[in-house]
This record gives sequence, C-alpha cells and structure tokens, in this order.
Amino acid sequence: MNMKKYTVAVVGAIGAVGQEMIRTLEQRNFPVKTLKPLDVPANKGKEILFNNERVKVDVAENGVFEDVDIAFFSAGGDASLELAPIAAKAGAIVVDNSSAWRMDPSVPLVVPEVNPEDVDWNKGIIANPNCSTIQMMVALKPIHNEYNIKRIVVSTYQAVSGSGKPGIDELSQQTKDYVVGKELISKTYPHQIAFNAIPHIDVFMENDYTKEEMKMVFETQKIMDKNIKVSPTAVRIPVFRSHSESINIETEKPFKVEDIIELLNNAPGVKLMDDPETNKYPLATVAEGKDDVYVGRIRRDESIENGLNMWVVADNLRKGAALNTIQIGELLIKRNLV
Amino acid sequence: MNMKKYTVAVVGAIGAVGQEMIRTLEQRNFPVKTLKPLDVPANKGKEILFNNERVKVDVAENGVFEDVDIAFFSAGGDASLELAPIAAKAGAIVVDNSSAWRMDPSVPLVVPEVNPEDVDWNKGIIANPNCSTIQMMVALKPIHNEYNIKRIVVSTYQAVSGSGKPGIDELSQQTKDYVVGKELISKTYPHQIAFNAIPHIDVFMENDYTKEEMKMVFETQKIMDKNIKVSPTAVRIPVFRSHSESINIETEKPFKVEDIIELLNNAPGVKLMDDPETNKYPLATVAEGKDDVYVGRIRRDESIENGLNMWVVADNLRKGAALNTIQIGELLIKRNLV
Repeated sequence: MNMKKYTVAVVGAIGAVGQEMIRTLEQRNFPVKTLKPLDVPANKGKEILFNNERVKVDVAENGVFEDVDIAFFSAGGDASLELAPIAAKAGAIVVDNSSAWRMDPSVPLVVPEVNPEDVDWNKGIIANPNCSTIQMMVALKPIHNEYNIKRIVVSTYQAVSGSGKPGIDELSQQTKDYVVGKELISKTYPHQIAFNAIPHIDVFMENDYTKEEMKMVFETQKIMDKNIKVSPTAVRIPVFRSHSESINIETEKPFKVEDIIELLNNAPGVKLMDDPETNKYPLATVAEGKDDVYVGRIRRDESIENGLNMWVVADNLRKGAALNTIQIGELLIKRNLV
Repeated sequence: MNMKKYTVAVVGAIGAVGQEMIRTLEQRNFPVKTLKPLDVPANKGKEILFNNERVKVDVAENGVFEDVDIAFFSAGGDASLELAPIAAKAGAIVVDNSSAWRMDPSVPLVVPEVNPEDVDWNKGIIANPNCSTIQMMVALKPIHNEYNIKRIVVSTYQAVSGSGKPGIDELSQQTKDYVVGKELISKTYPHQIAFNAIPHIDVFMENDYTKEEMKMVFETQKIMDKNIKVSPTAVRIPVFRSHSESINIETEKPFKVEDIIELLNNAPGVKLMDDPETNKYPLATVAEGKDDVYVGRIRRDESIENGLNMWVVADNLRKGAALNTIQIGELLIKRNLV
C-alpha cells in the first residue's frame, strides 16, 4: 500500500468549490502532508481549518508551487490560464476545475469512472469536465462499453448553484419576495428564475446553441468517444442544488432493458434508483450532498430500434465539481504518477 | 355571416377549467343565446356571472340537455362517461375536456389549428386533447405538413396548475414553509415539488412510462399522423402556470432552418419568440394568461441528417384546456355542424 503523503495546493481556497474541495480532501482522508491554501492577494492571511488545524492562505503566484505535488485549481478560467502552466513547470500536477483547458488537445479531460487511463498522458495539467457532462458520462459509460452508444438527445434541468453563490442568492431572494408580494428583481439571470424555466445557460454561440450545450457535445466526445453525436438542450430551473437530466440514447447493438439495469446496478459511481411502483426515481432533493450519480426511469424507447430513456441526477457541486477533481488526484496516486 | 345564437351548457361550471371556459366564452363573444351552467347537486342554485347577468347553476343530469346545442364538459372522466352520451342522445354536441373519450375510435380528437376537419365526422362527442399534446401539435403541424416528421423526442417542464387547485396550493404552501424554515409537507405529489423536479405525472403504466407520457404518444398519432413515433419524458417542476417543452424532431425531407422559422412565423396559434442575441425565447412567465403557443430556441440538430431542436411554451389552462375546447365549439359553428 502506498503510504506516501503529498504537498497539496488548493488554488481558489476561499471560493465555494475550493471550500468544498478542502472538505472533500478531509472526508476522503486524502494523504496530505502539507496543505497550501492559495487565493488572490486580498485573501492573504485568512485562515482555513483543515483536519482541525488552522492553515494560513497564501497568494497564488509564481514561486509558491516549487514544493507542490498536486495543485487543485478552482479559481476561474483566467487564473487557470496564467497560473496552471507556472505550477506545472514548477513540477506540480494541476487538476483544473475551470473550462480553460478542457478542449486543449494536450490536456486530458477526465472522469475517473470513465476514462481513468487518460491521466497517464498528462503533461502537467488535467482538466475536470463540466458538471452536466460528468454525471451523463458516469451513467452512460457502462452502457457504451457493451452496446456502443451512437447518439444522445439530452434535456437538462439545472440547479442555480451551477451559477455559484449569486445564483443561489437570486432564487432565494426572488422566492422570499414572491411570498410577501414584492416585485422580483433579476440580476444574475436574464429573466425571473423563481417559478420559471430558462432555456439559456452560459452565452449563445454562433450556431444558436449555448456554450453550456456545446460543452456537453465536445466534452462527451473527448471523454467517451469521438464518434458519439450529442443533441443537447440546457435549461435552468428553480432548484437550489443537483442537476437532473432527461437522457435519450440510441445504441448500435441491441440490448435487453434488464441487462442495462443490471449493468448500472454494478457500475462505479452509480446509484440505481428505479422502482416506479413505489414512486422511486432520482430526485434533486435526494441527490443533494451525495457523491453518487442517481439513475432511474430506465425504459425502452419504442420509437427506434435500439433506444432507451433514462433520468439522471447528481449533486452539481459534489460529483459535478469538487469530488471529481479530488478523485482525479486519487487516481494520480493510484497510478503512481505523483 | 352566421348570426345564429346557441344554447350552450358548461358541465363542471364551478370547477377551475369550467370557470375559465365561461370567461373564454365571454372574451371571444361566443354566440350564446342561453348559458346553462351545470354541476353536481351540491352546487345547485349557485350563481355564475355571465355577460353581467347572474345565471343559476342547475344539476348536470338526464333531462337538462334537451334544448342544448353545444355542451362543454370539464367535470372529470367519470361524469363524462355517464353524461356525454346522454347529452349527445338529447341532440347536443359534446366537447369534452376529460381523457375519457380521447382514444375512442368513434370520437374525434381535435386541435382546431391542426385537424379541424375531424370535427365533421363527430357522432355527438368531440374530445379535447391533453394540454402537453395540444401545444406540441400547434408548434409541429406546420413543419409536419412541409417536411413530414418521422420521430419526436420530447421532455416536458410542466406547471403545477396541471394538477388543478391542489397542485397550485401545494407549491404555494411549500414555498411559504421553506421561507420560514418549516418542514415541507407533500400531499398532492409523491415528493416535494418546491425546488425539485419530479419525473412522474399521472400513474405509471405497464411499460414503465407514465400515463401522461403515453397520452403524448397516442394523442399525437391520432391528431397528426398515425406513423409518427414519439419518445416522451414528462416532468413536473416548480412553476405555477404554463408548460415548457424541449422538443427534438427528425423529418423525412431536408429543410433549411430559416424556412422553418418563416413557416412558424405565419402559423395559426403560434407566436415566434426566437432571438438569442437579445435573450428572447419562450418562458412560462411570458406565456401565462396568453392564448398563443410560444416557439423559440429553433436550431438544427447536427446529430442526425434532418434534425431540429426547439423550445415550446403555452399556458396549460388556456390553450391547454379552456381555450381549445371553446375553439372546437367555434369550429362547429364555422363548419355548419350545429
């Protein structure tokens, strides 16, 4: 058993996902020798509690990465573009939660349950996929292995925590204002999010898809199989935490539904929850705070030869962000890359 | 111009949809000679305001339909099964809003913008489709006419008013309880609906689809084309009014997206709302209280040869129920069937 311990930096240690990363390192007993919480100069000297010890936040800048083995980044795309190469050059392996490096052909994009082997060809930076993609990959990979998925049509039901604290605050405030009959004010979203469904996440691209939708297309192809076609619609709904997805797939090979249920029941990172008779199916309120990707409403799509429908739910801040990042760190240790 | 006026019964006059029907008759200047509001014995003698006149509610039973030309029913499936044949035998044409007669091969199922000609073969009863089906039909019929739709994959985002007053009350109460930190209690829905997405509307069938989902399959085939394949997922979300739908279609013939936009821009009952640059797309909050079916987010589905994605929103109580029923009545007059 590998008993080595590591110097671990968390860049963006004061942010919501950075904090969740530090909690996850604790909860999973990650073999930390020294924790280096890093953030912007304004947060220098702030204290982080880690394994009951107070650790002071230092500035994320050139020079601080010299003794770092693994640097977990969640500091936004610009900070990542600047500092990840510096950290990598200093000898750290960067696991980055922003979208900055995801589509760089020299950077692996990894979901540990799906393409763990891709960490092997890292050149110092590994990217963590978008939350909506991660949970879809965990649910679909076991099916793809056996039956070869050709096409995915997916519609999402995404939580406001995907927009961070401003999203949570806006839904919370609008809900309170609604109850007392005050006018609802929208700042974070272009329209009222309380009691509404907004088919618009991230910016619109030239092809009239949103960036969030195109992430699901390109990241799926990079992580799972470049030949898979994805047709996405990404929608924000008034849920605080956990993304739900209505997923329709078409496979090349014929399957029995009970075989797919059996596959998913034994799949890593998947929690099968599928018993219509007792009203059991994945729900945002059930997945909240949990590590697993919940899968249910599994049923044959009778409209094509080899079609299947399913409902997939996961906590967008856990498996969709902090947890997957730390799991990539665990993978680096397991595969003796650090 | 046909200046004839009609004796019109509204069965279930005290219910939410019945009330909306009476408002719609007023708003559209339906040529009513006499309004007969009918309901259960407990509501006998209650007064309805119609065109500034008080009208007393009578009991819906054998004998009251003798002089009725058109009877609009929204009294639930059981009352419809019992009373619609009685009303029809007495000489009225029944337009029924329940699901009781929809799949009866001797009963036309009609969306006036889609299959108006089907009223011609009525034998005394005409059925009003399910709300989720109606808005999808209005949006897709113009496309089907030109390009022949082969397959539809649809995921819905449905409002609680689809469950009537109990649904509205439950979301309202849970929202209030959430704000003051009280425990949320679920009675109408099997799970918490506030801040959640429940992939379960109506009962589960043997094939693990819900009845709501199978309505979208069978009603689409009956209204538009028996050869169309539909793969549905029906989901309840915390929205009070208006259903949203993420619709993916595959056509037989190739199309240009701009031609489809042009078609929809001129389609009856459709309001095109599609300008990503200015954040314009259909929203539940915009469709509320409106008659039109709003269509936007129209974009090519690059994953198949002739694929298209769109976002369709309509008020489930107006076009999804009361309005469509009254429009069928107008159609009966226009086609000299009454």
